[in-house]
Amino acid sequence: MVIEFSKYQGLGNDFILIDNLHSTDPIITPQEASKMCDRHFGIGADGVIFALPGKEDTEYTMRIYNSDGSEPEMCGNGIRCLAKFIADLSGNTEVNKSYRIHTLAGVIIPKLTEDGNVRVDMGEPQLSPAQIPTTLNSQGDKVVDQSLEVGDRTWSVTAVSMGNPHCITFVEDSDRIDLEKIGPLFEHHSVFPQRTNTEFIQVVKSDYLKMRVWERGAGITLACGTGACATVVAGVLNNKCDRSCTVELPGGCLQIDWSAMDNRVYMTGPATEVFKGKYLTIAE
Amino acid sequence: MVIEFSKYQGLGNDFILIDNLHSTDPIITPQEASKMCDRHFGIGADGVIFALPGKEDTEYTMRIYNSDGSEPEMCGNGIRCLAKFIADLSGNTEVNKSYRIHTLAGVIIPKLTEDGNVRVDMGEPQLSPAQIPTTLNSQGDKVVDQSLEVGDRTWSVTAVSMGNPHCITFVEDSDRIDLEKIGPLFEHHSVFPQRTNTEFIQVVKSDYLKMRVWERGAGITLACGTGACATVVAGVLNNKCDRSCTVELPGGCLQIDWSAMDNRVYMTGPATEVFKGKYLTIAE
Repeated sequence: MVIEFSKYQGLGNDFILIDNLHSTDPIITPQEASKMCDRHFGIGADGVIFALPGKEDTEYTMRIYNSDGSEPEMCGNGIRCLAKFIADLSGNTEVNKSYRIHTLAGVIIPKLTEDGNVRVDMGEPQLSPAQIPTTLNSQGDKVVDQSLEVGDRTWSVTAVSMGNPHCITFVEDSDRIDLEKIGPLFEHHSVFPQRTNTEFIQVVKSDYLKMRVWERGAGITLACGTGACATVVAGVLNNKCDRSCTVELPGGCLQIDWSAMDNRVYMTGPATEVFKGKYLTIAE
Repeated sequence: MVIEFSKYQGLGNDFILIDNLHSTDPIITPQEASKMCDRHFGIGADGVIFALPGKEDTEYTMRIYNSDGSEPEMCGNGIRCLAKFIADLSGNTEVNKSYRIHTLAGVIIPKLTEDGNVRVDMGEPQLSPAQIPTTLNSQGDKVVDQSLEVGDRTWSVTAVSMGNPHCITFVEDSDRIDLEKIGPLFEHHSVFPQRTNTEFIQVVKSDYLKMRVWERGAGITLACGTGACATVVAGVLNNKCDRSCTVELPGGCLQIDWSAMDNRVYMTGPATEVFKGKYLTIAE
């Protein structure tokens, strides 16, 4: 069996993109996707993204299988790659072209920008402790600049949900954080009943933040789109940054805009096709 | 710039293969190869192998750039992949077809076998301490079952060169070796002036060995072809195994035959094409 694919990456978060427009179900199983994602025996990727026919009032449907075979609701870096892939498939790469895409996290509308990046409406942040969810400050309406004991130290944290939970801490020097050690202690802290993503942020300028992230279930990664969005929301709530901010991650930069008009967070960043290929075997 | 390639793997050791038959020099630089080998921003591989025109009395020339841009003399897993790639390029996949290939380690002659594997003449083992090189037992003609102090313990070691140095230790249970800790101590031990590859071997049966390897300059890897060859030589010298042996590595099995007729070591193992691709950019 030969499967045609394209390989894209956004900030080093890399995906196998498959044209699945002729069928409403992914043409391969999660187990086969996992084999394709193997970096020595397969193609190698963080996940496989399928471009499926639209559902309801959308033009396309996005499905993702992670390299471990699990299926996330959505992925900020992945949907930028999907938007570029769809533009390439359809031959329509006009600037400001947007696509209505059905995802398991609702309708997402990425748009191609003039400089070749992709801008994605990531929705409104959720700030109430119940929605994040966290038991920190459960009397208040949000969790901003709260004390939290983690690993023999008291940290000042802010909690934000972008559909998934984030715990953000502002620090003097993000490079000096021992992320491998402290990340898991935040992730599994008892105040986060569904665990949490954890971001350590250094404010370089009011419109430029440096971020290191510990992703729930994945550990240290090159980039986390929802984390960058949650970080700017947390920065504004703590009067540490502007509503429009560049966030520098290990894999590159994202431009984040938390609109005062509609309360939605817009993420703009790159997505690049690296190669096209024909996968030769789904080996047993 | 678009570069056509095929991706192969042998025991999880994976390579980008490039048809370079129209030119005597690799069509890309070591720096570009390094970018292509990046597992998030590029294609992802342990190295790039070029099929070049033959030199002197050979049909083909093999060159390899490692993922760090360095150039090794030869690679046992890589040359199996090259043999399959050449067969595919030339359309000649007949069984027992062999190729004379010029490498920086001399002429190597891989042969396609009936079961789809590749058998490679890896040459004669070198056993003299000066050739390995090692200062262990420098009065004797070989280093077999010698005591060596490494990391607060005395080990019984055998040293063999297959063009590169190997230090082999037979143990009760190879899974219980803390390879990450002890590997670097062997590699940089003062008795190995050019450092050494290190193998820990469990004898399952006289014709079946289990091997874990710490590669000089690379650390823990899924497979090491020269290490498997050196291991069977060491096993025979210690009366622990037959001259024909299966060696099980983390990435899969190799069949090793140390011929009593010509003193040469023959390695037989798999090489599989995983996908064909078109690489779209040599990004700056």
